[in-house]
Amino acid sequence: MNKMTQFKELISYEEALERIRKSIKPIRRTEIVPIEKALNRVLTEDIVANMSVPPFDRAAMDGYAVKAQETFGASPFEPKTLKLTEILHAGASSNRVLGKGECVQIATGSPIPKGADAVVMVEFTERNGNDVNILKPVYPGANISPKGEDVGKDQVVLRAGEQFFPARIGVLAALGRKEVKVYEKPRIMVVPTGTEIQEVGSPLQEGQIYDVNSYTLSLVLSENGAIPIRCKAVPDTDHEIGKAVKKSPDYDMIVFSGGSSVGERDLLRNVIQEFGTIVFHGIQIKPGKPTLLALVTGKPVFGMPGYPTSCLLNAYLLLVPAIRQMARLPRKIEKTVKVPLAQRVASASGRTQFLTVKIKDNQACPVFKHSGAITSMTEADGYIVLPINIDVIEKNQEVTVFLFD
Amino acid sequence: MNKMTQFKELISYEEALERIRKSIKPIRRTEIVPIEKALNRVLTEDIVANMSVPPFDRAAMDGYAVKAQETFGASPFEPKTLKLTEILHAGASSNRVLGKGECVQIATGSPIPKGADAVVMVEFTERNGNDVNILKPVYPGANISPKGEDVGKDQVVLRAGEQFFPARIGVLAALGRKEVKVYEKPRIMVVPTGTEIQEVGSPLQEGQIYDVNSYTLSLVLSENGAIPIRCKAVPDTDHEIGKAVKKSPDYDMIVFSGGSSVGERDLLRNVIQEFGTIVFHGIQIKPGKPTLLALVTGKPVFGMPGYPTSCLLNAYLLLVPAIRQMARLPRKIEKTVKVPLAQRVASASGRTQFLTVKIKDNQACPVFKHSGAITSMTEADGYIVLPINIDVIEKNQEVTVFLFD
Repeated sequence: MNKMTQFKELISYEEALERIRKSIKPIRRTEIVPIEKALNRVLTEDIVANMSVPPFDRAAMDGYAVKAQETFGASPFEPKTLKLTEILHAGASSNRVLGKGECVQIATGSPIPKGADAVVMVEFTERNGNDVNILKPVYPGANISPKGEDVGKDQVVLRAGEQFFPARIGVLAALGRKEVKVYEKPRIMVVPTGTEIQEVGSPLQEGQIYDVNSYTLSLVLSENGAIPIRCKAVPDTDHEIGKAVKKSPDYDMIVFSGGSSVGERDLLRNVIQEFGTIVFHGIQIKPGKPTLLALVTGKPVFGMPGYPTSCLLNAYLLLVPAIRQMARLPRKIEKTVKVPLAQRVASASGRTQFLTVKIKDNQACPVFKHSGAITSMTEADGYIVLPINIDVIEKNQEVTVFLFD
Repeated sequence: MNKMTQFKELISYEEALERIRKSIKPIRRTEIVPIEKALNRVLTEDIVANMSVPPFDRAAMDGYAVKAQETFGASPFEPKTLKLTEILHAGASSNRVLGKGECVQIATGSPIPKGADAVVMVEFTERNGNDVNILKPVYPGANISPKGEDVGKDQVVLRAGEQFFPARIGVLAALGRKEVKVYEKPRIMVVPTGTEIQEVGSPLQEGQIYDVNSYTLSLVLSENGAIPIRCKAVPDTDHEIGKAVKKSPDYDMIVFSGGSSVGERDLLRNVIQEFGTIVFHGIQIKPGKPTLLALVTGKPVFGMPGYPTSCLLNAYLLLVPAIRQMARLPRKIEKTVKVPLAQRVASASGRTQFLTVKIKDNQACPVFKHSGAITSMTEADGYIVLPINIDVIEKNQEVTVFLFD
C-alpha cells in the first residue's frame, strides 16, 4: 500500500472519448461467411451485381401477354379478340414466339414470351374457350417489370464498410450469392483481477465474492460485434497481471476489471507501463474515475473499475465506442426517452455524473445505491447524465434517459 | 386462374395488429441455459437470492480496520495511535479478533476482522513502523459495506417474465448461479412458395429467380427471439402447400412467402381453410395488402407477400409483433428520428402507406422504387408512415422516420 499514488491527471469524459477515437485501429482481418450468418457483419468490399434482377422481362400482373398494338382501340363494347395459344403458370417459360393475333395467359413473375410487349390485366379481359376478348388497350411495356429494373448487371449494390441488416443480405440472395467476405470480429480477452474473486459455480471461501464483471463485460462485447474470451480471475500481483498483459499479441484487445482501489489500480498501471504506454488513467466521471486505457504492442488494454455497477456503466460509456470502432460498426444509435425526474438529485461537483434510473409512472426514478451494488443496474432501465457544470436537477424537471436496451 | 377471387374484407393496420395480439399464444416450453448464453432470453420464474451480496461485511475503502470508539477525539494535532497487528490484502481474511488498541491494514473488498466496526481511510493516517496514527475520528460502520447491502438473502432479485440484459445476468453471477431457466425460443418454419423460386447457389434456369424472402424472413425471426427453420421453395400447388401446412404440429408458427398475385394467394388461402381458420386476409396497407394470418391446429400461419420489399416491410410491421408476443419479448422500442422530407410524396388513397426512405443531408429521401425491388430496402435507413386519411406530405414537412436498425 506504500506504492499508493494519486491519479496523475484527470481528463474530461469528452477527452477520454477523443483519445479512444484516436487510439483504436479498426480491424483488418477478413473472413468469408455464409450469407445467413452475415447479420450485423461489415462488408469489406463493394458488391457488384453479376446479373440483372429480375433476370428477364417478367409479368407484373396476372393476365395475358399481347402485342400492345393489337389492343389499341379495344373497349368493352368493341373488344379485340385474340387467340389463346398457351398458358404460362408462375415459373413457366415458353420457347414459342407470339404470332399475330395471339395471346398467352401469364402469371405474375413469369417471363414475357418473345413477340409480346405488354400484359393486359385479367380484369380487363373475357375468355370464351380459346378466344380472349381484350376490353381495354395497353401501351407497350404495360404491366411488365423489365430485366434489370431492380438491379442492373455491373451495378454496385452494396458498398465496402456497410453493415449487413436483413435487406442487404436479401440483395445478396437475389444475386444468388451463398457467401460474402466480411471483417472478422475482434477477439477480446476479458480478465477479472482480484485474489478475492471466485469463479461462478465454485463454493465461496471466507472473504471471497463471485466474479460478476467478466460476465457483464463479455455480454457487452458480444452485443457490440466482438468475441469475448473470458478468463478466470487472476490474483492482484505484478507477476500474474504481467502474464496476462503479455498475451496482448494474441488478442485484439484486453479488458481488465477490478482493482477499484487506488493501490490495486496502480498495480495494473505499473505493470502496463513496463510493456506499453498509458493513454489515460482517471476520468472526471462518476462512477468510473479510475478507468484506464493503455496501448501494449499497439493493442488497446482497458482497466475497468472493479465494482460491478461502475464497471458495467463504464463499459457502456467507454468500452462500447472502442469496440464498435475496432469492429467497424457505426456509432450506436442511442434509444432515449424524455420524462420528468421523480426526485431532486445532486451531482458530484467537478465530475460528469451518470445516474441509473428506472422509468415508473412515466417518471425517471433514481435507483442508484452505490457503485458496488449490482442491483443499481438490474433495476435500471437506463441512465441520465448530470453534466460537469450542473450541481442539481430539480424534481419534475425533464431529463433524457439513455435506455440500456 | 379461374379460381381467382377478390379479398373478402380488407381490415385496417390497427385491426390487423389487434387480431394478431388476440391470436398468438406466448410460448410455454422452458429450458435451462448457462448464464453466459442467457442474453435477451426471458426468465420463467422469480429468482430469490440464496445468499447475501456482499456475503460479509467488507471494507469500502483502503485503510485500517479499527474500533470506532478508539478514534474518537483524534486529530492531526492529537492523533490516536494504534498497533498494527496484521495486513489484509484484497481477498485475504483473518481469524484473529481485533483487540483493544489494535488495528489491521485492510484493502477495499476485504472482510472486516472480528472486533472491528469501522475503517479509517488511509489518507487520514500516518504509519511509523507498527504504530499507526489516526488523524480523524470515524463513526461505527464508517467505510464498511455491510453484508447484504446489495442483495439480502431471500430477496427477490429478478422476476418471472423479465428479459435478460447484461446487468441482470450479472446479478445471477453475483449469486454464484451458473445456469438459469428461460422460455424456449419459438421454432418457426419459413417456406417460400413459387415454382419459379430457385435456391441460392444453384444455377438459374430460364424464368427462375433466386429465393430472397426465406433469407430476410429468417434473419428478422432470429433478431426477434425465434429460431427460423428455412425450407427450400415449394411449388405453387395444392398438394405441395398442403404438405407444408400439415407440418404445423411440429413448429410454433409457419411463415409462407410468395404468391403475390391474387390467384396464388388464394391457393394458400384455400389450402389453409381445409385445415384451419383464416384470422385475416387483406389489409388496407401499401405495400402488403395480401398478407394473411390463419390458425392451423392452433398454430399461427402467416402468408407474406412474395415481392421482397413487401415481404420484408410486412415482416417488420406484422410478423415482428407476432414473434415477440410468442417469444414473450417486450414490444420493440422503435428508434426514430424526425427530419424534413426531401420531396413531396402522395399516398395511396384508403390505405396506410409505408414508404422507405434514406436519411441524407438530414432529410428523408424516398427510395421506394416498387414492391418488387429489393434495392428499395437495401438503400433505406427506415420508413415513414402516411396515415390512411393523409393524401400528401409536402416537401420540407417534418416526418418521423422509423429506423430499421
